Amino acid sequence: MRLVTYRPPGDAEPRVGALDGERVVDLPGFTSMLDLLERGPTGLDDARTLASLAATTHPLADVTLLAPLPRPRTMRDFMLVEEHVRNSFGDVPEEWFRIPVHWKCNPDTVIGPDAVAPWPYYTDKLDYELEVAAVIGAPLFRATVEQAEAAVAGYTIFNDWSARDIQFREMSVGIGPAFGKDFATSLGPCLTTADSFDATGARMSARINGETWSEGSIGAMRFSFGQAVATLSQYQPLHPGDVIGGGTTGRGCGLEIDRWLSPGDVVELEVEGIGVLRNTVGRKDDDPPADSGINLVKPEEFP
Amino acid sequence: MRLVTYRPPGDAEPRVGALDGERVVDLPGFTSMLDLLERGPTGLDDARTLASLAATTHPLADVTLLAPLPRPRTMRDFMLVEEHVRNSFGDVPEEWFRIPVHWKCNPDTVIGPDAVAPWPYYTDKLDYELEVAAVIGAPLFRATVEQAEAAVAGYTIFNDWSARDIQFREMSVGIGPAFGKDFATSLGPCLTTADSFDATGARMSARINGETWSEGSIGAMRFSFGQAVATLSQYQPLHPGDVIGGGTTGRGCGLEIDRWLSPGDVVELEVEGIGVLRNTVGRKDDDPPADSGINLVKPEEFP
Repeated sequence: MRLVTYRPPGDAEPRVGALDGERVVDLPGFTSMLDLLERGPTGLDDARTLASLAATTHPLADVTLLAPLPRPRTMRDFMLVEEHVRNSFGDVPEEWFRIPVHWKCNPDTVIGPDAVAPWPYYTDKLDYELEVAAVIGAPLFRATVEQAEAAVAGYTIFNDWSARDIQFREMSVGIGPAFGKDFATSLGPCLTTADSFDATGARMSARINGETWSEGSIGAMRFSFGQAVATLSQYQPLHPGDVIGGGTTGRGCGLEIDRWLSPGDVVELEVEGIGVLRNTVGRKDDDPPADSGINLVKPEEFP
Repeated sequence: MRLVTYRPPGDAEPRVGALDGERVVDLPGFTSMLDLLERGPTGLDDARTLASLAATTHPLADVTLLAPLPRPRTMRDFMLVEEHVRNSFGDVPEEWFRIPVHWKCNPDTVIGPDAVAPWPYYTDKLDYELEVAAVIGAPLFRATVEQAEAAVAGYTIFNDWSARDIQFREMSVGIGPAFGKDFATSLGPCLTTADSFDATGARMSARINGETWSEGSIGAMRFSFGQAVATLSQYQPLHPGDVIGGGTTGRGCGLEIDRWLSPGDVVELEVEGIGVLRNTVGRKDDDPPADSGINLVKPEEFP
């Protein structure tokens, strides 16, 4: 089952639905995808029943798909594919093999299918990252790997937009990226339930203006989603609506192949079993006013 | 005004109150501190009126103080004090002077006054960090420094518990700390409203079992809270209930002075105008079972 958050014709409030070919089946009774996930396995069973009844449907072309979770409860991104680390950093730090390394993303800047990705004034090197994220569908604490696997409700495509220049500037201080990634993350086009997704073998690709820049498989992960989530849960509770990125696939971003996006580019991430997540790159913003005290490129303007 | 979240005598549901000497004044009509903050300046005005009426009060000794915001909407921590960076990292990276560097904390593991801080199995070097955090009380986007300052509802003490061994192991990969800090953050004992707090001059200290280990002032920050928050808000909306740590003060943690906590230690962080945030250090947890696939200290046990 492929679940969506969508806006019906006429700009109405967002609703939960299921994709059925070129139609969206409305799933009444859920106030949001988070509401559905918080009902656990019963919510997913109810959704399956409602999808099969198909009481109300819309042509896909008549609705607007939003991010399946427009505001994740929390969002983390692991970095689990060796080839991506090697291509991005030049070598693979020893600890990468031992720790499921991750950082916490910004749940307040999620954008959905067909949205325009912002181009912050402080970057000349905007980049995409081709990833799959697991969406948690049950409360977890001190879980085993098996319990963690069972708690994954489904998977979505995850584009971890990155501003490489400022990202590496801030990472030189040691506590990770923030301005370099927090301006946008794309999720979508749907949440494919775990029973319908091959979390170890799905093929992935990225196309820019129709040209394939990245191709790979979700299989090449140092730790599985189950291992990563179980390890997380030892000292922090996880909840329905938490989103867990698995990491960029090898050659899954422009940084790795030294190719760079331009304003107006159409970026399509495709993952077998989920679909295509398409966004257009916006025009670069103007610098903030001089003396605003906030110019990250011209810090001499800080008062 | 010093606002608290407290549990009245008899283990009832948490309520919002205000400190008045050795008493807590109940503030009826707010379902939580987040509810109060979301009402903006009106909420704070109403709280002041209710506090002055003091219809229901409890002796402080009869109630349990919780973290003023038991679950922040989001939580970030800046690293804005040069002496802390120099003492912790050996030198100060050039970009630290140019970018208000920060990382995102875990809002799901906040503990309050007098709670026991967990000691994860994966660390032998548990540490405290003496900090003040600003609590956002108004929606902000593309704010000026002045607007950002005006949006700070108040301040609380922030203990960024850290597991130094695993923190530096994971930071060697480049994307910042996670397991090294995500197991606990203490907030409390109250939220002092901005009009009652000296955000540039307040004195701060840390005592371990009654002995002063750290002393400093909030004044020594590279960027002000207003500058940091305004810069954040350019590409991400901020909301009431977002918590923004300013960074550890100089010599504000054991790492900087090579002194280390033991199980059972009582850690008291005191900040002028806010109060004392006291926690006890728990006993170190046992390792997870061999072959669990989740041992961060013995990764050879990963299957």
